[in-house]
Amino acid sequence: MTRTETTHYFGAGPALLPTSVIKQAAEDLIEYQGSGLGLGEISHRSAPAVAVVDNTKSNIKQLLNVPETHEVFFLQSGGTGEFAAVAYNMLAAFAKKTGKKGKADYIVTGTWSQKAAEEAKRLGVDVNIVVNGKKSSPTGKYDRIPEPETWNAFGSAEDTAYVYYCDNETVNGVEFPYVPKVPEGVELVADMSSNVLSREVDVSKFGVIFAGVQKNIGIAGVAVVIIKKLLLEKPSDEELTALNIPLAPIVFDFPTLVKNNSLYNTLPIFNLHVVYLTTKLLLDNGGLEVQEAVSNKKAEKLYATLDSVPEGVFNLLVEKNSRSRMNIVFTVIGGGKEKEFLDGAKAKGMTGLSGHRSVGGIRISNYNAVSEESIDYVCSWIKEFAS
Amino acid sequence: MTRTETTHYFGAGPALLPTSVIKQAAEDLIEYQGSGLGLGEISHRSAPAVAVVDNTKSNIKQLLNVPETHEVFFLQSGGTGEFAAVAYNMLAAFAKKTGKKGKADYIVTGTWSQKAAEEAKRLGVDVNIVVNGKKSSPTGKYDRIPEPETWNAFGSAEDTAYVYYCDNETVNGVEFPYVPKVPEGVELVADMSSNVLSREVDVSKFGVIFAGVQKNIGIAGVAVVIIKKLLLEKPSDEELTALNIPLAPIVFDFPTLVKNNSLYNTLPIFNLHVVYLTTKLLLDNGGLEVQEAVSNKKAEKLYATLDSVPEGVFNLLVEKNSRSRMNIVFTVIGGGKEKEFLDGAKAKGMTGLSGHRSVGGIRISNYNAVSEESIDYVCSWIKEFAS
Repeated sequence: MTRTETTHYFGAGPALLPTSVIKQAAEDLIEYQGSGLGLGEISHRSAPAVAVVDNTKSNIKQLLNVPETHEVFFLQSGGTGEFAAVAYNMLAAFAKKTGKKGKADYIVTGTWSQKAAEEAKRLGVDVNIVVNGKKSSPTGKYDRIPEPETWNAFGSAEDTAYVYYCDNETVNGVEFPYVPKVPEGVELVADMSSNVLSREVDVSKFGVIFAGVQKNIGIAGVAVVIIKKLLLEKPSDEELTALNIPLAPIVFDFPTLVKNNSLYNTLPIFNLHVVYLTTKLLLDNGGLEVQEAVSNKKAEKLYATLDSVPEGVFNLLVEKNSRSRMNIVFTVIGGGKEKEFLDGAKAKGMTGLSGHRSVGGIRISNYNAVSEESIDYVCSWIKEFAS
Repeated sequence: MTRTETTHYFGAGPALLPTSVIKQAAEDLIEYQGSGLGLGEISHRSAPAVAVVDNTKSNIKQLLNVPETHEVFFLQSGGTGEFAAVAYNMLAAFAKKTGKKGKADYIVTGTWSQKAAEEAKRLGVDVNIVVNGKKSSPTGKYDRIPEPETWNAFGSAEDTAYVYYCDNETVNGVEFPYVPKVPEGVELVADMSSNVLSREVDVSKFGVIFAGVQKNIGIAGVAVVIIKKLLLEKPSDEELTALNIPLAPIVFDFPTLVKNNSLYNTLPIFNLHVVYLTTKLLLDNGGLEVQEAVSNKKAEKLYATLDSVPEGVFNLLVEKNSRSRMNIVFTVIGGGKEKEFLDGAKAKGMTGLSGHRSVGGIRISNYNAVSEESIDYVCSWIKEFAS
């Protein structure tokens, strides 16, 4: 079990994790706390398993300064599952407050927010697309966060259950540099799957933040949800059905999950433990202020390098003020040149650089576990390739 | 990373796995096939990840002799999620065939089939309880599979989408010694979460078999589904809605998952890999004929030991012909005696013997990974305690 050399891997997810975390996780998979049993083999309701839940929750609360008004919980899910879960639960919470079936506003800035809007609509949510980054762009691509002045109006607290957006679009390399401003009383929902715990966040502004963990903080199998406690009230199933609001399968019912400390059904404790280990490392390293500075520095190095290359070599697709710090996307100009770039990188030991199958091109993912050394290494290859 | 001694662990799930499997999984978590990256850190769509899906599928097909009429797939789920998933998908398949919303017959023989029936009913399924083991029993407990002659009539192929049962009730220690006979044309659905791959099964008799993997073949986070291919046809979402059939969240939509080779969304590949390793071990050891003989022998030893103890010490709760080979449940007669039994076992290094929190008592789980040595060891403690 040697993994001593630096792995220069830039895949978009599931993605690289800190070697110290992976090694500790592997030890704990074999035997946890001297019990003769690994952490994947014990009851999710046993004391050591409950401690994993409690300690991971505590780490996330500390890292994000989660206020008393909000709760943190975990479930067996990922981003795509949460597209549905959010719709069910936000409609239920709104019905509790107003007695009505609410609408939902979606800010669509890339593949994932588009999919989230489609899933909500499919499940019967009255979806209003406040803005669509692709349609707003002269390129016809998701390459920007359109100026808020150009968006359609949000609904009001009287008719709108939530406003939804994706904080970082992994496929398109578009990230919000700010938190969207929504009308007073309307709840904001954010998908932070690919930039969670890469920067500080004012949690008080959100109704719900969710993240599949497999990009920045864990291996696939678990989602983290941070929710305003007020949104955990829901009408009876009969009332919801009468309002034509679809019921969540019980495994996606947020109030049930929170009431049971994330253990209504079998939570994959081993997978959550990896999140525990990465969040502990983040805390040990000084928390999100430090991580944000590191993430920004690495992203700035990459963009500075790409911007310094003479025109005609690369095509940087995303508008400067919408550039993702997590997923840096570009194309290589000229037939066969992209393959040349990827092959050359591979020969130097750099992998995971292909763009998403739906868009192609190059994508350099700059998650927390990608070292500055790896970023420097790919930057030197970018310069070498360009010259 | 030493785990050399035999661990005498009898927990009901998540449960003990073979040490060789866990050690291999831990190595692969750190670095997979010399790539410098662990198996939790690569894209679920990369070639090595797809190979995990394909090879695990192939192993299960071999082990269960899955006929050409059926497909095997995986999803991020467990038993409780499947309670809902089965309801959505079986109703959709029936609507495709008949243009109608079907009813569902539930055979309730314990905690899990009861929960499955409740979840289906909650989601709007017209649930007919064909039999309830608790109500049929003079003890008022789930302690038997009532004789089929006493069951209410099943629905017909014209009005009933499926008949549902739980092959082994983990909490109550009740297992079917046969496959329930259902009317021609009615699909049978089985929850085999806690006895999957412990014996041979005639898959052709089933519409759907599902299993959360965390008891017999893996760590929590994945469910295995075996489905008749004919059940993968469904009407449009509009037609389903018009029939008042709830739509599955896309992550639980069987046709979508199968169409995408279990990779529509991010499957927890590392968790599936553990299933690959346990199924490979089963094949290497001679397949299910061998495993069934081993499982039966271990269970027979336990029951023979318990039956040999003079009356007044233990209370074996389950009728002889319904006894589970997987979860052997009993109570210890006399105040404080149960604690004495558990404490004595613990002092000898045996753990995981407490009954489910809802029923108490003692439960010895006899999953595939529990060695005959462990069974002999607990049998000798049972004898010592009784004498």
